[in-house]
Amino acid sequence: MFGSSAVTGIGESKYYRAGRSPYSVGQLASIAIRGAIADAGLRPRDIDGIVTFHDHQHDAARLWSWLGLGELKFSAKAWGGGGNGGGSAVQIADAAVSAGYAENVLVYRALCQGTEGRYGRYNVQGTYSPPGPAAIDEAFTVPFGAASPAVKNALLIRRFMHLYGISQEALAEISLACYAHAQHNPNAIMYGRPLTRDDYHQSRWIAEPLHLYDCCQESDGACAVIVSSAARAGDQVDRPAYILAAATGMEPGGGIGSFNDSNYPNGRFRPVGRQLWKMARVSPEDVDVAQFYENFTGTTLMAICDIGFCEPESVEKFVSDGNLTRGGRLPMNTSGGNLAEAYIHGFQLMLEAVRQIRGTSTFQIDGTRLSLYAAGPGTPPSSAVLLSSEP
Amino acid sequence: MFGSSAVTGIGESKYYRAGRSPYSVGQLASIAIRGAIADAGLRPRDIDGIVTFHDHQHDAARLWSWLGLGELKFSAKAWGGGGNGGGSAVQIADAAVSAGYAENVLVYRALCQGTEGRYGRYNVQGTYSPPGPAAIDEAFTVPFGAASPAVKNALLIRRFMHLYGISQEALAEISLACYAHAQHNPNAIMYGRPLTRDDYHQSRWIAEPLHLYDCCQESDGACAVIVSSAARAGDQVDRPAYILAAATGMEPGGGIGSFNDSNYPNGRFRPVGRQLWKMARVSPEDVDVAQFYENFTGTTLMAICDIGFCEPESVEKFVSDGNLTRGGRLPMNTSGGNLAEAYIHGFQLMLEAVRQIRGTSTFQIDGTRLSLYAAGPGTPPSSAVLLSSEP
Repeated sequence: MFGSSAVTGIGESKYYRAGRSPYSVGQLASIAIRGAIADAGLRPRDIDGIVTFHDHQHDAARLWSWLGLGELKFSAKAWGGGGNGGGSAVQIADAAVSAGYAENVLVYRALCQGTEGRYGRYNVQGTYSPPGPAAIDEAFTVPFGAASPAVKNALLIRRFMHLYGISQEALAEISLACYAHAQHNPNAIMYGRPLTRDDYHQSRWIAEPLHLYDCCQESDGACAVIVSSAARAGDQVDRPAYILAAATGMEPGGGIGSFNDSNYPNGRFRPVGRQLWKMARVSPEDVDVAQFYENFTGTTLMAICDIGFCEPESVEKFVSDGNLTRGGRLPMNTSGGNLAEAYIHGFQLMLEAVRQIRGTSTFQIDGTRLSLYAAGPGTPPSSAVLLSSEP
Repeated sequence: MFGSSAVTGIGESKYYRAGRSPYSVGQLASIAIRGAIADAGLRPRDIDGIVTFHDHQHDAARLWSWLGLGELKFSAKAWGGGGNGGGSAVQIADAAVSAGYAENVLVYRALCQGTEGRYGRYNVQGTYSPPGPAAIDEAFTVPFGAASPAVKNALLIRRFMHLYGISQEALAEISLACYAHAQHNPNAIMYGRPLTRDDYHQSRWIAEPLHLYDCCQESDGACAVIVSSAARAGDQVDRPAYILAAATGMEPGGGIGSFNDSNYPNGRFRPVGRQLWKMARVSPEDVDVAQFYENFTGTTLMAICDIGFCEPESVEKFVSDGNLTRGGRLPMNTSGGNLAEAYIHGFQLMLEAVRQIRGTSTFQIDGTRLSLYAAGPGTPPSSAVLLSSEP
């Protein structure tokens, strides 16, 4: 039943460095949404479902009205932020379409740090952002200096490197691939700003073993996709990106601030791979191109292992020797990714996964039939989506 | 495709007046969840999906781990609070099961105003709750004294009464029915506290035309349901409550603070009825018993009209003469409802809708085959679920 839908439309705003958007979060979202609807060959009134994210700070119901969207029949929010939510959001949209509750479901993500608070507790209304459940973790981590995602992830990544003999070069490979690909993408914030291996190693530490270039950007912007019934998708657009499988998963445990896993940090992304390949009835070797949510390079190494491309012992070899680009074993983050394109909580990677199916990426992998979007071991649950050129 | 699932389990905590729970929100949730799983004939590890609410203040992912639930395959949150979310949450769970993403989806609601902030901005951590998008509305309403849901709804309700010649007695009928039914339900907070028509009229005004007894309670507690595949539901439990249809909808417009509708206040619940009856292929006359989200009695009158039971001109007659209780045209809120049982953001009404299918309500409507849960014209989107004794 699942997988009876396809991504028929994608839309995005221009991407900006955090706080530099001249538009509000609602305006950015509107640009992306209108673009996606037109791209899907639809009119606004054809949209009848919506999936957003739990931490949106704007009123999506009002945006729906302002944009003249259709009669709403399904609404939901995805758990978690970042890449986790991105895949889950598309999975929820597919469930709505596959179950027949809606025909064209809008999924969008908008971040605008000029009008929305993010790091730090204040937002523009001068009031506090909610500490939320994460405050429970923070009571045990902040007093020891683990106050930011970079610091928390650095601890996990350092242990991963220690256990499996992984060097700094493996982290560099992820960053270098993203920056190299961004040089082909005029929409990337880091377009025209190539990164050399020396630049990488000489950049300042954010939290060892994470250099500046191991950490995702903070960006303003919005991106949107339309998920439509697979039965009609071919009439709407030339090359629908069929949703072959979509998985959400987590292993028992807490968030990124939980350092007490008995298995290697952090195996919580493994269930996503188990579910994905079982649903799709294909294996990792069949994937032509992948977009990995690289909030930090080191967690992407874990994600590559957890989802089934290789074992931790061999991941450094797997990501070396040009394997992450055209002609390699797993070309990844072909628009520049979170590191070098933009960081719209990773949802912009979903659009690139669709472009690879369409053949319209600025760094196209020719003959792509299976295009993977994969989050990684962040705040659970996490997610992945496998897109196919065939229904 | 939709409607391939059934509610197989229900569970609830004891209900308390707001702030009087001896348990934390997580403990209350655990009591309800464990109860629902056992009631569904399942073990914790059989649960593989979850739908929560966007404003939960606790960490549902951690609760999942603590309770030893199964391999997570689907997660989502419902938009909106209150009754809106309750129906949408069950619709999302049905979509997940109908699409094949999960087999047994947990939906739960927990409120605990001792540990979670609610009205007023402070929560126990001493920080502010988020003003969120509603703050946009509030800038235009609070300066004029419209600071609470009761005041905002009073304006809508007064206009509704004015336009259609509805008297205070119509509001009283809703309240009296709820209190009468609560006298049969030992779990109801107002059990043993019957309400007379004189009590009603002599109670203080909260915001005219709303007396004290027109307004829902504020309660602590939790309730949970398990949504399972319809194909297996009959093997699990004696009387599954099959989900015949579930609808989410809204008409263009803002939240409850939006007073500029050209049509009568407030027609935003109408699309829910349109969708529900079309999906279910039945009509309102076929419904045996209904649970309406009565945050305020007056909006319930609107909901009764909007979902299709009668026209506004005849709603006073429709709710009079014993029509809202056993033997009447539409027995409603048979456990006491938000007014007299408890206010777990209305989700406890969903459990009563299930009990009516099972024949286990403390105020059972004999021979119930179709049992309706309906939210109402609150913050959009709104929702409804129609349960059936037959698959």
